[in-house]
Amino acid sequence: MLLCDIGNTSYHFLSQSESFKKDVKSFDASEVKHNVYYICVNKDVDESLKNLPNWIDIKSHLDKAKYYDTMGVDRMMALEAIESGIIIDAGSAITVDVKRDGIFEGGFIYPGLNAMRESYQNISSALAYEFNFDIDLQTLPKNSQDAITYGYLKTLYCEVMSHKMEIILTGGDANLFVKIFKDARVDEHLVFKGMKKLIYDF
Amino acid sequence: MLLCDIGNTSYHFLSQSESFKKDVKSFDASEVKHNVYYICVNKDVDESLKNLPNWIDIKSHLDKAKYYDTMGVDRMMALEAIESGIIIDAGSAITVDVKRDGIFEGGFIYPGLNAMRESYQNISSALAYEFNFDIDLQTLPKNSQDAITYGYLKTLYCEVMSHKMEIILTGGDANLFVKIFKDARVDEHLVFKGMKKLIYDF
Repeated sequence: MLLCDIGNTSYHFLSQSESFKKDVKSFDASEVKHNVYYICVNKDVDESLKNLPNWIDIKSHLDKAKYYDTMGVDRMMALEAIESGIIIDAGSAITVDVKRDGIFEGGFIYPGLNAMRESYQNISSALAYEFNFDIDLQTLPKNSQDAITYGYLKTLYCEVMSHKMEIILTGGDANLFVKIFKDARVDEHLVFKGMKKLIYDF
Repeated sequence: MLLCDIGNTSYHFLSQSESFKKDVKSFDASEVKHNVYYICVNKDVDESLKNLPNWIDIKSHLDKAKYYDTMGVDRMMALEAIESGIIIDAGSAITVDVKRDGIFEGGFIYPGLNAMRESYQNISSALAYEFNFDIDLQTLPKNSQDAITYGYLKTLYCEVMSHKMEIILTGGDANLFVKIFKDARVDEHLVFKGMKKLIYDF
């Protein structure tokens, strides 16, 4: 079974246990001849896939009443994979969602790494730094690189930790963010797990 | 005495107790004939003012050893105005600085309102919302506008409140941010107070 989770920047495929990515700008979905079970948050791509009968959108398998109208279907799928916990999906956006005893409690959206770096850079060239993922978040910074890193990461860290729940990290930057959320469990296939669960339960 | 605090986007003047702003893109500093005591974090403007003898840069009055090399001089000036507290200067960037019993402990930088709104918008048109400053930050969001508002504001709120200190709000967006930091004291002239203190003490 070929699964695909389509985001703002890439097609993320899972074939057996092997996963791979394709850029949304250059990938031609009509080249795939197998059946693909997919979800998609990218409106343009979603529209183009409607004409390809072997691309099967599985969002209709979701009980959307548990979530909210404009919520990204990738967030719902990741939530389907767990019973309780706080999910951080670190991609071009970072989504943070809380589920307790099977109930979705709500979530929020934070800019991803590149978006946030550009944001600082656009304010002033004096803030054009890479983030320092080896920062000590226990100490208030006294240099510019750490001042923006702390601004980006400690704020997020404080909010996430306040929920006192198991943290599950997924998304393309999960392996960077685990340096900050040291006790988090990294599960790069969380969205795929939710998708599989839905397909098998259906 | 005419004071001026020059940021990335505007000249902010104080004459007696009246303050006014001029856009850095259009304002011609050579039109001012009075003496102006100023500080400036905008490199291009700073360079152009060196040729105007009535524009007097007062950054040399600062004991920079108390701070760090690449720190914005506006942050230092605001800190000079207080003995203890956490200062949030909400401008094109938001700087957050902690001072305890006369000692600067460090600080961080967070994107300002416009920079952060653009950041979300650039990730996806599905995230192009204004922030909702009337949000209830005690409840996890279940709609897109609140999901980005909470991502922007609750994260910052959590970090700032963790210091358990008096909060002083300044900068162009202080009157918006006081809706979030309800117990904060707003002081729009904090940087000017620091500048005056330095000029009189010198």
